[in-house]
Amino acid sequence: MKTKAAVAFAAGKPLEICEVDLEGPKAGEVLVELKATGVCHTDAFTLSGDDPEGAFPAILGHEGAGVVVDVGPGVRSLKKGDTVIPLYTPECRECDYCLHPKTNLCQSIRTTQGQGVMPDGSSRFSLDGTPIRHYMGCSTFSNYTVLPEIALAKIRSDAPLDKVCYIGCGVTTGVGAVIFDAKVEPGSRVVVFGLGGIGLNVIQAARMVGARQIVGVDINPEKVALAKQFGMTDFINPKEVEDVVEAIVDITHGGADYTFECIGNVNTMRQALESCHKGWGESVIIGVAGAGQEISTRPFQLVTGRVWRGSAFGGARGRTDVPTIVDWYMEGRINIDDLITHTMPLENINEAFDLMHAGKSIRSVVLY
Amino acid sequence: MKTKAAVAFAAGKPLEICEVDLEGPKAGEVLVELKATGVCHTDAFTLSGDDPEGAFPAILGHEGAGVVVDVGPGVRSLKKGDTVIPLYTPECRECDYCLHPKTNLCQSIRTTQGQGVMPDGSSRFSLDGTPIRHYMGCSTFSNYTVLPEIALAKIRSDAPLDKVCYIGCGVTTGVGAVIFDAKVEPGSRVVVFGLGGIGLNVIQAARMVGARQIVGVDINPEKVALAKQFGMTDFINPKEVEDVVEAIVDITHGGADYTFECIGNVNTMRQALESCHKGWGESVIIGVAGAGQEISTRPFQLVTGRVWRGSAFGGARGRTDVPTIVDWYMEGRINIDDLITHTMPLENINEAFDLMHAGKSIRSVVLY
Repeated sequence: MKTKAAVAFAAGKPLEICEVDLEGPKAGEVLVELKATGVCHTDAFTLSGDDPEGAFPAILGHEGAGVVVDVGPGVRSLKKGDTVIPLYTPECRECDYCLHPKTNLCQSIRTTQGQGVMPDGSSRFSLDGTPIRHYMGCSTFSNYTVLPEIALAKIRSDAPLDKVCYIGCGVTTGVGAVIFDAKVEPGSRVVVFGLGGIGLNVIQAARMVGARQIVGVDINPEKVALAKQFGMTDFINPKEVEDVVEAIVDITHGGADYTFECIGNVNTMRQALESCHKGWGESVIIGVAGAGQEISTRPFQLVTGRVWRGSAFGGARGRTDVPTIVDWYMEGRINIDDLITHTMPLENINEAFDLMHAGKSIRSVVLY
Repeated sequence: MKTKAAVAFAAGKPLEICEVDLEGPKAGEVLVELKATGVCHTDAFTLSGDDPEGAFPAILGHEGAGVVVDVGPGVRSLKKGDTVIPLYTPECRECDYCLHPKTNLCQSIRTTQGQGVMPDGSSRFSLDGTPIRHYMGCSTFSNYTVLPEIALAKIRSDAPLDKVCYIGCGVTTGVGAVIFDAKVEPGSRVVVFGLGGIGLNVIQAARMVGARQIVGVDINPEKVALAKQFGMTDFINPKEVEDVVEAIVDITHGGADYTFECIGNVNTMRQALESCHKGWGESVIIGVAGAGQEISTRPFQLVTGRVWRGSAFGGARGRTDVPTIVDWYMEGRINIDDLITHTMPLENINEAFDLMHAGKSIRSVVLY
């Protein structure tokens, strides 16, 4: 079949809207019609050429929502008409990782996904006979796409897809880090470095689980109003204090129970660890640092009881946890609407990147 | 009263055996007659002058066992004749730390203990009218010593004090890191960096909780026999492999569930983290690094599921957990006897330091 898609032909170039060829689903695969897709920093990172795993031409996008149009042989958990969210972290429920209680990093199709192909080693996308790569196993910048059955979360049919598409990456990354990875307890003091989309989702999850104090840290005071709306109780601007770690330890009465780094800067990662409370504070790295960069600290920080961990896709097991997060949204427990600041048709997708780079959007969503 | 003690008069000098003056216990304090004390690397570290908190003259020693001789006013949990192990990490059961479920680092007397005095700010030891400092709140290199009630674990009276004194530091540090901090599960694959006294205690605790594989890493192959006796299943000599992390990942089928750094070297701390299994491996720093040294890694190591933590006094709450570890020894579940390689009277205590520096002892114990 043919489908309209935004194709990344080369690093650093704008996406081009094309009609591309899409093969139907093979065994264990599902054809999905996307209804909406967010545009995420990770798409921009790969498009920039800085992603060492990036390869072109490819159809980017990994934060979508849509409806099942067709299923290949052997698909049992999904049928035509089901509402779904694509998962760049799949959940096969069979590999050593899926069967381990401490991780969500299903490895069953890791290798082929990283190469931009389906598990059988081939691409379903092509243009004039030349294969186009899949991206993060999703390629949601195409109106229709093919995914493995294990890479689709089935969600309730009454969810607005122009909103819940954001659960495919950003919402789950922030909310999940609080709930599934850090397991923040009621009454905790929480510090969030970076008040972008991820940071705001960390904040609202911390509020949801009953944190007593939620301190936001950002060099841009314009972010304060929305962060407060989402649950931030205190704000620290590193430009306005002598030592940000001291300022946090002071305001939290000895240090945070949990800190979250949502920037991707190795210096703030260190600050996030060192502003944890002695004895029990845990710091969670969510942001992605530049290639080759390293974090450092004195081991004394850990020996005196701090814990340093990371989070990917919020520790969520996609098929299991994403439907739950959709429920939380539908029940009004988390706010997505106010994070989606811009929408546009696929034809204008490059504007979404421009808005992101200019810091004018929290999240842009493309509507098919 | 008078008591015989080994006094550290200055950094870098041998200890001197003296008869010193000891004031009786004040309110909340207990007079203890030591029967035995281990000589630990930490004593040597302070005696060397490298410890920035070290101050002289002082009576070192923190790994003892003895009997209560007298109690000061208000002491309720101990009485004359009780068998006790001094605790350099006390347990007041009242401070924010004692009441927090995630830490054992009671802070109630931290400041005065660091200054080498009792909680009221004065020392009980003196020589010719000049005060001598206490050390780590214990000063077990004195035949008699005074401690706060909260810094004494009451243990069973049938325990041999020339053996269980080692539970006052080394045994608990290693065994506790496995059981109270890492909480190693049965079936785990465990890697231990450094096969000294702490490493051997990590090994026997890992065996006790049912680890399926226990890999020892050390550059000294002479340590293999005893480590195997304690439960080591595999040995890696970093001098005999190209890349120690690769060798560990290989032998553990993908990485360790838990690694323990028992050396105090920031390079092996990094190796210990990076040889953990993706998704769930946890690395515990036990060794104490030199002043100012830093650990580093790529944040990707954490974002892909590894956890970096530390352990002090094995995460044990002294008054609660030390008696349990004594029980484990008495029940034959842990071996202490084979770790105590040398004993000597207090007069020969400097030999214990010589044996340690020459690598000839695992633990020397002074018998009063």
